Amino acid sequence: MKIAVVGLGLIGGSMALVLKQKGFATKVYGVDNQEAHTKKALELGIVDEITDLDKAVAVSDLVILSAPVSACAALLPGILDQVEHQIILDTGSTKMSLLEAANGHTKRGRYIATHPMWGTEFSGPEAATELAFTGRANVICNASESDKDALETVEQLYALLGMYNVYMDGKDHDVHVAYVSHISHITSFALANTVLEKEKEENAIFELASAGFESTVRLAKSSPAMWVPIFQQNKENVLDVLNEHITQLRKFKSCIEKENWAYLSELMEHANKIRNVLDRKA
Amino acid sequence: MKIAVVGLGLIGGSMALVLKQKGFATKVYGVDNQEAHTKKALELGIVDEITDLDKAVAVSDLVILSAPVSACAALLPGILDQVEHQIILDTGSTKMSLLEAANGHTKRGRYIATHPMWGTEFSGPEAATELAFTGRANVICNASESDKDALETVEQLYALLGMYNVYMDGKDHDVHVAYVSHISHITSFALANTVLEKEKEENAIFELASAGFESTVRLAKSSPAMWVPIFQQNKENVLDVLNEHITQLRKFKSCIEKENWAYLSELMEHANKIRNVLDRKA
Repeated sequence: MKIAVVGLGLIGGSMALVLKQKGFATKVYGVDNQEAHTKKALELGIVDEITDLDKAVAVSDLVILSAPVSACAALLPGILDQVEHQIILDTGSTKMSLLEAANGHTKRGRYIATHPMWGTEFSGPEAATELAFTGRANVICNASESDKDALETVEQLYALLGMYNVYMDGKDHDVHVAYVSHISHITSFALANTVLEKEKEENAIFELASAGFESTVRLAKSSPAMWVPIFQQNKENVLDVLNEHITQLRKFKSCIEKENWAYLSELMEHANKIRNVLDRKA
Repeated sequence: MKIAVVGLGLIGGSMALVLKQKGFATKVYGVDNQEAHTKKALELGIVDEITDLDKAVAVSDLVILSAPVSACAALLPGILDQVEHQIILDTGSTKMSLLEAANGHTKRGRYIATHPMWGTEFSGPEAATELAFTGRANVICNASESDKDALETVEQLYALLGMYNVYMDGKDHDVHVAYVSHISHITSFALANTVLEKEKEENAIFELASAGFESTVRLAKSSPAMWVPIFQQNKENVLDVLNEHITQLRKFKSCIEKENWAYLSELMEHANKIRNVLDRKA
């Protein structure tokens, strides 16, 4: 199957690598508006040929949209205009703006809204890896709006990546990811700024930072070019969660200020329940 | 050398295991007020004999205080009263309360205030591991107040654990750890409560939680019995950092509310600078 990858970053690049390795992709066309990305992707063997978007859609059987989510939403209607038999999927971290962009289009059925729940704090084609995706969930949203043959091909594609498919309404997806992904990034960015603000002595951070610190600020290395559009697209849900999170932090603050150690202990015991979720996963 | 370990948890247990394996400890006496811990520590071969605190101090050459930091501070003066040639070290996450407890004691020189910068979210003797500590910093506070021979022995002990020693004033230590360790735990506990509060459907968290979520909430599994005393002892520093962190989070909130995407991007680019610290470490 001939595949076009639009946006040669961590996700698109990793998908291309694995799909080629597994024989699912016989030829990969790459599209990206950054020359550094297209050059690097060719050099690393992630794509076979660089082309423009129109040609990539015309010659491919399957188009993977893996650019920042706002760019994907802007491109989708134009791509659908051009589609005959092709299948279009996107890998964006929010789904409502894409679903709305496709809504009512005569070729709506050729589009599958997906979100593979994998990523790292690294970006660009040089971050792409064949070791990606395995064992993680891929969310498919509003599956009933897609053509059956297109849906089945995309389900097979994700199964080949070692992922299991989960089905969800797009609206629910965007609420859930605000909780299990977007807020983690905000706290991590804010934590990095907290430490950088006060700890002017970088040496002290460097020497004392333990594994716990590293795991909580790791996501602060993430790319603004990817994350600003996500917070844009999912504004209301992200604000809901952020408000709740500030409320929860204030509870900790109040306990420490008032030396209410019994309630502080209760808050932590409650937080310990997250074990049920994490340990089921492990 | 005969060693007493007071507090048979992750840190004390791991130290006993490594020091026995390296031949530094010829016999390990264990002290803990929880019978489940003493039983488990004997069973796992972490200690050779369980005894009470007075006997453990009397028969040992070196005493490791690795109970929760408030307990260590309370025990330290009584232990120093009993000391002749023995060396006492503690591994607590805050140092000022211990330094103050030892201050002015005629045997002050026999005490070394240390903080090995390693830990996990797990606790109890069953979490102890011979694979601990390597490559991490150990902080020694107010080293000039300790006897030279005692200091040298403790420096060797940490070198044997594969750690490098860093020297610091106790006051500075407590400020720095608020930034590079304590705040990470608070954000993680609060993040877990945020998600548990809103996501009543555990299945959604379970299915969608990505690696990013796991790394930011991992510390929320930590033990309240260890962490309440740390926040108690380091109250003022922790509140300073927590206030700064809430201020930083409010900046993100305000950018998203006002759709000030340019400033949001700037905040993230600033946070990206944490790479300099993390990558130097890796």
